[in-house]
Amino acid sequence: PSAMIWKDESYDKGAFDHYMRKEIADQPEALRRTLSGRLEPRFQTTHLGGITLTARELLDVRRIRILGCGAAYIAGALGAHLIEQLARIPCQAEAASEFRYRNPVIEMDTLYIAVSQSGETFDTLAAVQEVKRKGGRVMGIVNVVGSTIARECGQGIYLHAGPEIAVVSTKTFTCSVVAMALLAVHLGRLRDLSNANGARLLRALDALPDRVAAILEREDEIARLAEFFQGAEHAFYVGRSAGYAIAMEGALKLKEISYLHAEAYPASELKHGPLALVTPETPTVIVLPRDDLLAKNVSTIEEVKARGGPVIAITHPGETHAPFDRSFEVPALEPELDPLLLNIPLQLLAYHVARQRGCDIDKPRNLAKSVTVE
Amino acid sequence: PSAMIWKDESYDKGAFDHYMRKEIADQPEALRRTLSGRLEPRFQTTHLGGITLTARELLDVRRIRILGCGAAYIAGALGAHLIEQLARIPCQAEAASEFRYRNPVIEMDTLYIAVSQSGETFDTLAAVQEVKRKGGRVMGIVNVVGSTIARECGQGIYLHAGPEIAVVSTKTFTCSVVAMALLAVHLGRLRDLSNANGARLLRALDALPDRVAAILEREDEIARLAEFFQGAEHAFYVGRSAGYAIAMEGALKLKEISYLHAEAYPASELKHGPLALVTPETPTVIVLPRDDLLAKNVSTIEEVKARGGPVIAITHPGETHAPFDRSFEVPALEPELDPLLLNIPLQLLAYHVARQRGCDIDKPRNLAKSVTVE
Repeated sequence: PSAMIWKDESYDKGAFDHYMRKEIADQPEALRRTLSGRLEPRFQTTHLGGITLTARELLDVRRIRILGCGAAYIAGALGAHLIEQLARIPCQAEAASEFRYRNPVIEMDTLYIAVSQSGETFDTLAAVQEVKRKGGRVMGIVNVVGSTIARECGQGIYLHAGPEIAVVSTKTFTCSVVAMALLAVHLGRLRDLSNANGARLLRALDALPDRVAAILEREDEIARLAEFFQGAEHAFYVGRSAGYAIAMEGALKLKEISYLHAEAYPASELKHGPLALVTPETPTVIVLPRDDLLAKNVSTIEEVKARGGPVIAITHPGETHAPFDRSFEVPALEPELDPLLLNIPLQLLAYHVARQRGCDIDKPRNLAKSVTVE
Repeated sequence: PSAMIWKDESYDKGAFDHYMRKEIADQPEALRRTLSGRLEPRFQTTHLGGITLTARELLDVRRIRILGCGAAYIAGALGAHLIEQLARIPCQAEAASEFRYRNPVIEMDTLYIAVSQSGETFDTLAAVQEVKRKGGRVMGIVNVVGSTIARECGQGIYLHAGPEIAVVSTKTFTCSVVAMALLAVHLGRLRDLSNANGARLLRALDALPDRVAAILEREDEIARLAEFFQGAEHAFYVGRSAGYAIAMEGALKLKEISYLHAEAYPASELKHGPLALVTPETPTVIVLPRDDLLAKNVSTIEEVKARGGPVIAITHPGETHAPFDRSFEVPALEPELDPLLLNIPLQLLAYHVARQRGCDIDKPRNLAKSVTVE
């Protein structure tokens, strides 16, 4: 593993008012580093030098469990979709803290993946130790080189995202998901993912930094969208499948820095309970990729509107007949990576809502950057 | 499968103001029916006549996936803990609506279990059909005999809980969990669960109806606890492991009938985000069984109190030094079933908070009893 030396200016806010805002802006560069040297167009696959398992051992993996806390867990939920869809290996994310305490059955043909920005998250480290103690195989997806979790795992993928100072994670969320996308392509290409699909995904990964940069240039639009939350104390974030993972991340960011009670829900579970809370004072943000589930998501929008709830859609350009009130449109790239792009405006949305509410964005009350205690 | 004929008075509120309250009161009787004929003390196991898989086929099951919507999904989350702990078969619950749409890998050595009160829940039925179409094995945990999901599964466990009229489920949640406990003991006794543990669990299951009845007699205490929510618009429900599943159910009930924005969180994830929302106006309900995680839960209470948040503990008698503000103590039965007992006061708590807020308990706005559409 190559050591990264952070230059001093990495720790400076530069032209930005907050570290969080700077780190959102850092994302194209951070992504380029995460991707650097890892795309292998010659074989339409990815090259992950930090993984010591052989191709044969990776073929023996029958399922994957991803462990993390907070945003790292949510990144795992999105990564699990990517892995299961591209490699057709059953994959699920679980909160590391829940996993470590429930005396989990550790299976020999399962690969465990620990996700942590700092590499020092206490519950995630304890989960790694639980897996290892029971003879399981684990790899790390970690930002800080040489951190405890990275060393304990002994193999994995470094993010190289650069230092993250703000308490809430933005660029490391994005880079963690991309690290799992790299793994998903790698595992997929060991199995049934075609050359053509491999090549298509490599092109999309390569284009990702510029696509993120293009979204960041439209900050003014998002700041205006944030005004929509004036007077609100509650919000729902909904989506389906990978879109639900993005809804979780969007709600967590808003909750952490704006103190607005945002809760994420799988869109289809809304009618099994939380729809009772929808009123004209409760905005709903829907993550609306143009995928197979578009029609289902449109009917969710209609249900919320029918109860008088205002709706913001984070979506792609193109006509829908969905009756949302506002939208932000991100040009589509490839269906597997579009959910990650839809998260970028949600980061800026949380930032601007918090700014408009006068919150202390870089140091939200009650929270610490890395939870290195139980 | 024996047909149950509901007597007319089952559909009557009787002496109660609301169907929900009547159905809470029904629970001891409903549980007796769920348990009836299914405890087999001679072999310290359970007898489940509706399951057609042979003992040998059940031994070949390497993992279990439980599918349901709303409270049925949450019952599955609690059931998954019971099954994994007692049978040591990796087991997880997933929202049926999410499962059916993500093109899941269906595994031959996985047993899928569909949970539905009505047996007509659309998304759950679609998930069953997805499993069957891909050659997977599925069984139902269903209340209504002869319903579509029961017929589609062809095998499983009927709850015999009697009709449930209130939109929010109470007795069918409890009976679904007990059905899964019966299955967990059965699967455990096919494997490594000892005679002594089997016998201990049978005694506890047999005692459950009376224990529930004893809690219901203490309604006045809970009505006073409900006053604690006056003026609140937000609440957190937290717990760890099986206690987290109970927190989810408690929060869902409060949300559905009182329109108070209650959100459940794994206790250890609080500090990864939502702790930012804790204020003196945001009560936290903690599910606090006296298990291995007691000390961890006590430190969660301390964290919430340190941020000025009021705390209600639903716990067992005995001394703790946890600084909660109020508590309700349920006599402990056996650790595996205690979480289910801790849910009973949370049902009454939701009921009394909703009453004090003047809500329409049996017909919460925007919700339907059985979601038989997509």
